[in-house]
Order: sequence, then C-alpha cells, then structure tokens
Amino acid sequence: MTPSKSSKAPFTFLASAFLGKKNFAPMKRAHLFVVGVYLLSSCRAEKGLNFPTYDGKDRVVSLTEKNFKQVLKKYDLLCLYYHEPLSSDKVLQKQFQLKEIVLELVAQVLEHKDIGFVMVDAKKEAKLAKKLGFDEEGSLYVLKGDRTIEFDGEFAADVLVEFLLDLIEDPVEIINSKLEVQAFERIEDHIKLIGYFKSEESEHYKAFEEAAEHFQPYIKFFATFDKGVAKKLSLKMNEVDFYEPFMDEPIAIPDKPYTEEELVEFVKEHQRPTLRRLRPEDMFETWEDDLNGIHIVAFAERSDPDGYEFLEILKQVARDNTDNPDLSIVWIDPDDFPLLVAYWEKTFKIDLFKPQIGVVNVTDADSVWMEIPDDDDLPTAEELEDWIEDVLSGKINTEDDDDDDEEDEDDDSDDDRPDEEDDDDSDDDDE
Amino acid sequence: MTPSKSSKAPFTFLASAFLGKKNFAPMKRAHLFVVGVYLLSSCRAEKGLNFPTYDGKDRVVSLTEKNFKQVLKKYDLLCLYYHEPLSSDKVLQKQFQLKEIVLELVAQVLEHKDIGFVMVDAKKEAKLAKKLGFDEEGSLYVLKGDRTIEFDGEFAADVLVEFLLDLIEDPVEIINSKLEVQAFERIEDHIKLIGYFKSEESEHYKAFEEAAEHFQPYIKFFATFDKGVAKKLSLKMNEVDFYEPFMDEPIAIPDKPYTEEELVEFVKEHQRPTLRRLRPEDMFETWEDDLNGIHIVAFAERSDPDGYEFLEILKQVARDNTDNPDLSIVWIDPDDFPLLVAYWEKTFKIDLFKPQIGVVNVTDADSVWMEIPDDDDLPTAEELEDWIEDVLSGKINTEDDDDDDEEDEDDDSDDDRPDEEDDDDSDDDDE
Repeated sequence: MTPSKSSKAPFTFLASAFLGKKNFAPMKRAHLFVVGVYLLSSCRAEKGLNFPTYDGKDRVVSLTEKNFKQVLKKYDLLCLYYHEPLSSDKVLQKQFQLKEIVLELVAQVLEHKDIGFVMVDAKKEAKLAKKLGFDEEGSLYVLKGDRTIEFDGEFAADVLVEFLLDLIEDPVEIINSKLEVQAFERIEDHIKLIGYFKSEESEHYKAFEEAAEHFQPYIKFFATFDKGVAKKLSLKMNEVDFYEPFMDEPIAIPDKPYTEEELVEFVKEHQRPTLRRLRPEDMFETWEDDLNGIHIVAFAERSDPDGYEFLEILKQVARDNTDNPDLSIVWIDPDDFPLLVAYWEKTFKIDLFKPQIGVVNVTDADSVWMEIPDDDDLPTAEELEDWIEDVLSGKINTEDDDDDDEEDEDDDSDDDRPDEEDDDDSDDDDE
Repeated sequence: MTPSKSSKAPFTFLASAFLGKKNFAPMKRAHLFVVGVYLLSSCRAEKGLNFPTYDGKDRVVSLTEKNFKQVLKKYDLLCLYYHEPLSSDKVLQKQFQLKEIVLELVAQVLEHKDIGFVMVDAKKEAKLAKKLGFDEEGSLYVLKGDRTIEFDGEFAADVLVEFLLDLIEDPVEIINSKLEVQAFERIEDHIKLIGYFKSEESEHYKAFEEAAEHFQPYIKFFATFDKGVAKKLSLKMNEVDFYEPFMDEPIAIPDKPYTEEELVEFVKEHQRPTLRRLRPEDMFETWEDDLNGIHIVAFAERSDPDGYEFLEILKQVARDNTDNPDLSIVWIDPDDFPLLVAYWEKTFKIDLFKPQIGVVNVTDADSVWMEIPDDDDLPTAEELEDWIEDVLSGKINTEDDDDDDEEDEDDDSDDDRPDEEDDDDSDDDDE
C-alpha cells in the first residue's frame, strides 16, 4: 500500500523540463521537450503536492514590429527577453536556449494569469528595441501599462514566477485593522511607505498609487483610509511616511500633499539604505550599486541565535549611522542562497556557520574580514563601528594583505611529519 | 564599461548542468557534462555572486558490499540514494539519471564539507540494503554515525544542500545571552526544545544531545548553561521544555532528569502539532501524515497583511484547540512554493492572492473551501472553530458537493451582456 517513493520526491520544475531534451539543436524549438511530460506522471503518490512539469507547448513567441501591437494588446503584462543576435558560438547558443526554456516553464506555470512572454532579437528587431528603450542585451524587461520594469535577479523559474506574481497584484496594499498594522510593522528588511488618505477616490491617493507603480514589486506601498489605523501610525491626512529598512522611526515626506513626481523623486533619493538585505529578486542590482568599488558585506543567518544576535548589533550600528551617505551594509542571510554558501566560503575564505563581516572588492572579489574569534563573543556595536570607520577611511582595505597572502595560507600545514594522519586508523576499533 | 548582462543573471545551478548534456544515454556517466563548465565563465560581471556550474567530475559512486566499509570510513556523513534496479523503460532511466545529476551537483557544491554521495542498487545490492535497513526504493538516506536519516522533501539541489548543511551543524544550539533568548523566542513555526544543564560535561546534557541527534535537522534542540537565561525561560536545572509550534507556553517534560530514550519517546508522542507549517525539506512526510485521509489546509502569505492576519487567527484557533488530537492544520505560505501556486489554484479552484482554508482529500486532491467573501472581512476565530468542527464531524466534507460541481462553476459567468467591458475605455480621460 505504500506509494512508490520515486513520485514523492519529484524534481523541481526546472529540472524536469530538461529530462525530455535529447538534443540542444539550435532554434529547433518545437516539440523538443515533449518526453518530459510523461515522466512524473508514471507513478503517483498522495495527491496535492505535484510539481508541474513542462508540457512541451511553445508559449514564448518572437516579437517583431509586425506582431508587436497585437501581442501587447493581448496581455496585462508582457515579459520580454531582449537577447543578443543568435551566435554561431555553441556556448552562447546553449546559454540562449536555456533562458528560452526557463521562460517557457514560467509561461506555462503562469498560463492563466494573462502574462505574455516574448523574445526580442537585438539585431533583427533593432528598431523595435530602440522604440522600447531597451539598451542592455541579455536583459529581461516587463511591460505593464506604460511602464517598463527591468528584472535583475536570479534567472531561475521560482524567482521569476514570484516576481511576476508580485507584479500583477495591486500596487498598494490597504491596511484596515490593528492586526494588519502589526503585520505592517513587522516588515523591517525592505523599504516601505504608508500613506493616509480620505478614500480610494482621493486625488492624493491616486498620485500615491501611480508613484507605487514605479517601484512595484521591489518597494512596497501601503495605504489606509481608517482614522484609527492612521492614529496608531501617527499619520496625518494625506501624509506619507517613508520607512528605511531596520529603522524604527519613519521619515514623514515633507510638504504634503504630494504629486506623483514628488513621491517618486523622494523614494529615488532615499533608495540606498544604511543596511540592506540581499534578495534573489534584485541581487544583481544591489551588488552593482557598490560604493567606490566595494561592499561592506555581513553574513548572518537570522534563524540561528548567533546570527540573530549579530543582525541585531548590525541594526544598532545602522540606526546610529543612518545619516552617513557613505555607509550601506549588504546583509546576506545564507539561508536565502544555499547554492552560493560553499562558493562564498571558498571565495572569501570564511566559515559561514558563524556570523561574518567584511569588505569585498566587487572587481576581483578580493576581501578582508573582521576577526571574530568566537561566535559566543560577537563584537559590540561600538567595536563594529570602529571597524567600519577604519574601512571607510581606507585603513582597512582589501589590498594591504595581498603581499603576504601566500605565506598566510600555508601557516596551518606545518608539514614536518608527512602522512601522519594515515596512521590514525588504530582508533577505529569498533568491532 | 557596463558588464555584459548575460553574465549577471546566471541560471540556477541545477539548470546549468543540463546545458552541457547532449545525450541521456543510460549509464554513460563519465564526462557527459563537461561542456557545461565553460558556459558561464565565458563572460564576467562584477564578482562575488557567481552561481556555481557543474564541473563534470564524477563524485557519486556506486556502493557495493566490497567498498562499503572503506567509503563509510572516509566521510562524516554519507548520503545514499537507494534506487530501483535500472529499468529498460526510457522514462524510468531518465528519471534515474536526473536524480543522479542532482546528486552530482550537490556533491560538488559540498565538496569541502566531508560528505560522501553514493548510489545503492536495490537489486544488485539487496544484501547490503537489507543490512542498512533500507526498505523504500527511490528514497534518499543519510548515514551519520550510527543514525540513518531519511530525506523526504523536495528533491532539488538547493533544498538538499540546506538539509545537509543543517545536518553537519552541532545537534544542540547553545543559548548564552539575552539577545539569543530573544532569537529563541522568535522561532515559532516549528517544534523546539530547550534544556538547562550544569555544563557540557553533565551526563544529562549528554543524554539531551543524543536525543537531539534523533531529530536533527527537522526538530531544533537548544540548551543553556547560564543561570540568567534559565531564569528568563523559567527552566529548572536538568529540565527540558517542549514548545509546540505557535504555542506561547511550553510543556515541561515530566520526571526530570531524563534518559535519551525518555526524551526521544516524548518528542515522538508530541510530534504532530495542532498547526504546522509545510516546509520544502519535509513536505512529503508532512503530507503523508494525514488524519483519516484528509488534511485541513490553510493558505496564508505571512508577508502580506491579510495573510498575516489570517495566520494570527489560525494561531488563536490552534491555541484554543491544542488538546484535540484529531486536529492538525497544515499552513502553507505560498511564498515558500512559487512553482506550486498555479497548480494549487487550478487543482483546488481557489485564488491564492487571498487567504484560504479548506479540506483536501489526499487520495484524489478533491477539496472544499470555506467561503471567505472578502479578504477585508476574514472569519473570526469562533467562525473558524465552527467550520473546523463541521469538518471534523464530517458535516463539511469533500464528497457532498461532487454532484452539483458543474452547476456551481457556471454561477459567475452571467453572460447576458457580452463585450460590455470593452466599452469602458471612456474612463481613460487623463489627458
């Protein structure tokens, strides 16, 4: 009666699609993947958790000047992959096909959500691309109404699906009750705004809503029409408060009521926080927004007591230094990036089982890390601030240690007694 | 100077590996995937966020009675995929190869972590499998010391990597400071235990540590040797408190001090909570643990104010009914399973942009959902309790509505006035 185990642990959606692909012959898109469909339906377990597999249908179309208007009209949201002209280089061909497949998978999963998926060839459709304002080949853009949103996160099916689902939600979330205020207050690791307006019909609310669309889904906008909620959040009528991540107190945007443009400008000016979390949906954008070629990076696993403690100390430092425009610490929770943990440990030569803070040069990934001898004895906020000051003044930097790097690395392997470890087998006297 | 975009958005690790595979010829494992290696290194962006790609090395070996002892001795942790004998069925062959590749990828990522990866053929190595106590073909087991742990989650590289990283951490996390107590208290969505002991040398602590290993990494065990921390948590010397998910007050395990066996038995008895979160790392195990063939399933997105509010109400219901052994609500946060959202919406005929609660028959995924007309007017705890009572008594069940299903579905589409929506464009008089 036990159901076959092989169906209980299906592969991710992404993986399943490759299963059916015998061939990566370029541009032969149709029906290459059909075999994949039958794979996971061959044996069944209890129902309700079936990961979808790609059904082989072509949903991603090539956009041309000719079909552009028709396609655009058909969907609420249009997702465009603006790609380099097809190359004769096999590596580039495969890279292209893989992106195509990821998009096909996402298109299938979101089929009933009224989202179109297209490819735009940078050479063949240069005129169209120019009209659309596309400038970076290899980018993924989304058209929503008259807005163009660039996706700059991990190019993985699950991340993309969540990004698109967030984009088709209402741009402003309404807060109605005390419990919802509590939910609002709990959000601390990204920028949020909240405004108090008379009603949905208010012109000031409409300006707020339009402004929200400029930042959806990266920055969350909330509003309330409820006097009690407004009082609890100390909001005056038509006022909008801006919350920097990890700060308790918001900034009331000055000179209410505001136009859409004023709100957009304010957010853009305050968009780089003192402490920010690296998120899969915009990780590359965050990483590119370095300060003078470096990032101060802190690793802390929030679900771990040491990591939590370290993050609390970081927050303290961020609060004390929120007015310093030269400071923006990137917090990475390793739990968000399991596949990068080993890469980071190797690249940065650190142990990610405990909290870490360091400076990373984004050009060559060279880095230097604060010495934290024991995770039971984390640095205090003051010690962290001193260290950060040394980083910002250049006293601590990634170049100084480069000369004696090789010496350092050999310190542990004092090879006077070679092969000694192999003799240790005498301990294994289990039987 | 702008780095090429194509390298900024690399594919997930999993996807990249398939890129190089031209062929799925069974059992030809060696060097099939080498092409994949070069793919993402062809162009570079800023450094520090490079997703690893499979390097083509074979790391997963076939386990036999002959090499068993040698392999076991070599690693701290041994990850075994116990598979059906190789079939001539192409579908099954491909399924097998895919699992093999996922394991190869995980093995590469965790290479410096001292974890071995092997395959055990159920037919060829029947004797060995019997010795190891393996009974379900298609299962993934991990050997750690004299323990065997079964992995029963999503078979995806990132989930597996995190599972294994959690397994090589210490089984007990020590709580030393007030901030760490705060971190401990914040953990509410899975079972946790905490004990107060004299020191790491205490025999009672050692029993606690041994017990922890039985449940690692699914259930977290904490301990403190600090009087102040113990006082804050109202723990007496050698006492262990058991926290059910979402409950404020713990249960003090009776009759301290305890042996390892007593602790293990207590946890096993209390392992099914009144409200539990579906987690990728043990989702299939949770789903199989149904009550009389059904699950009460609640969807609530915690990061959304409505979802947060609904979850708070659910917690209230769980707290009021924690003594009812027939009640175990499965809470699903759609954010944890982006690729399943569309599947669930289709299968259960519900909208997951708002909170939902329903009964699902695990045999056929037939379901019935509570009517929540407006997400601004969620049911109260009392209304939810009445509804749950009706489910438990059988008054609400998944069978009753089966006859009139077709009629119901057409209720909304009152098509008297077709195409009227298209005339609404007159509202767009912004300019």
